Amino acid sequence: MDLLQAFNWRYAAKKMDPTKVVHQEKVERIVEAARLAPTSSGLQPFELIVITNPEIRAQIKSIAWDQAQVTDCSHLLVFAAWDNYTAERINMMFDLTNQTRGGTNEGWENYRSMLLAKYPSRSAEENFQHAARQAYISMGFALAAAAVEEVDSTPMEGFDSQALDKMLNLSAKGLKSVLIMPLGYRDTANDWLVNLKKVRRPRGQFVTEIK
Amino acid sequence: MDLLQAFNWRYAAKKMDPTKVVHQEKVERIVEAARLAPTSSGLQPFELIVITNPEIRAQIKSIAWDQAQVTDCSHLLVFAAWDNYTAERINMMFDLTNQTRGGTNEGWENYRSMLLAKYPSRSAEENFQHAARQAYISMGFALAAAAVEEVDSTPMEGFDSQALDKMLNLSAKGLKSVLIMPLGYRDTANDWLVNLKKVRRPRGQFVTEIK
Repeated sequence: MDLLQAFNWRYAAKKMDPTKVVHQEKVERIVEAARLAPTSSGLQPFELIVITNPEIRAQIKSIAWDQAQVTDCSHLLVFAAWDNYTAERINMMFDLTNQTRGGTNEGWENYRSMLLAKYPSRSAEENFQHAARQAYISMGFALAAAAVEEVDSTPMEGFDSQALDKMLNLSAKGLKSVLIMPLGYRDTANDWLVNLKKVRRPRGQFVTEIK
Repeated sequence: MDLLQAFNWRYAAKKMDPTKVVHQEKVERIVEAARLAPTSSGLQPFELIVITNPEIRAQIKSIAWDQAQVTDCSHLLVFAAWDNYTAERINMMFDLTNQTRGGTNEGWENYRSMLLAKYPSRSAEENFQHAARQAYISMGFALAAAAVEEVDSTPMEGFDSQALDKMLNLSAKGLKSVLIMPLGYRDTANDWLVNLKKVRRPRGQFVTEIK
């Protein structure tokens, strides 16, 4: 299945089959896709939490409009963004870059200084909003990988993020939950959405060309 | 090349070869990937502008830190989000859904009513921020498709969005630019980044498992 076929095949599964488990190798490839996503200045300002524990998923379901995918999936991904850009975090990523690439240069260090001057002095809220956007790119990569693996997934914003942060003790790690994404297999017999046509505005109402 | 190979192959090209043009069929597949991306409530609250015009790209370069990819690419994608969620826009997408699927049902119409009660009464800024996040998922899909096509791309936030909105007269369409993404081919001889290792935090510093 090529990528566009996979993008047409995928949909936001509303009912998953709770008896089916996504193989770990597939989960790893989906997680790896999320990890490889590009982010602003390469800061990768979020973490991924992969939850299989059924009790914790049942608790999360109760603060996610009781959406059944949260417990019917086999793996629940939580994308949690940095609550702020601190000097420590910025330096961590620049140091990792220097370590990975075996050295540094003036342009790169000037860029570090620019970010250190700019980001930590902004409000935590502004920085969090910027970090949260980056998590959406990563979820895009994870959704793409899941589709290629023929694994169903549901991108979800509909949950009480403050309650989830508390449940997972995310504030102790300086994180705030942004998105959740169940991985599993569609329950073809019981999902009202599975046989309905995908709806997107036609190309003419979506794209403008400037030639 | 499988998807993870493509994700490892891709990078944010810093210097593209201005003599190379991305074939239209490839551009169409990348645009189609962006169009197929999932969005919150399926509202697809953004549009895509595909710019090949060299004079306009030169103008955009001047308000994008003079980054050379803007003019060295062959196609510049602009992701522009809705500046607000209005009743008209929400109804447009729900009506399109009913038309595409040939009918409606009570649950779906209740969902429409819920969004109509919730979104238009929020501030335009809150709605725009939510719409902008959805554009990041779409850019994720477009980046994935570009990589699979072995087309280089650079996700970019570094431009003066207000100036770009003015240049493209986006406010008349109720849009605000969020992201730009040049498509082209890496200039292997002249791109300082092309041979440097990709930097991501290792899995252990990116993923937490709750079993």
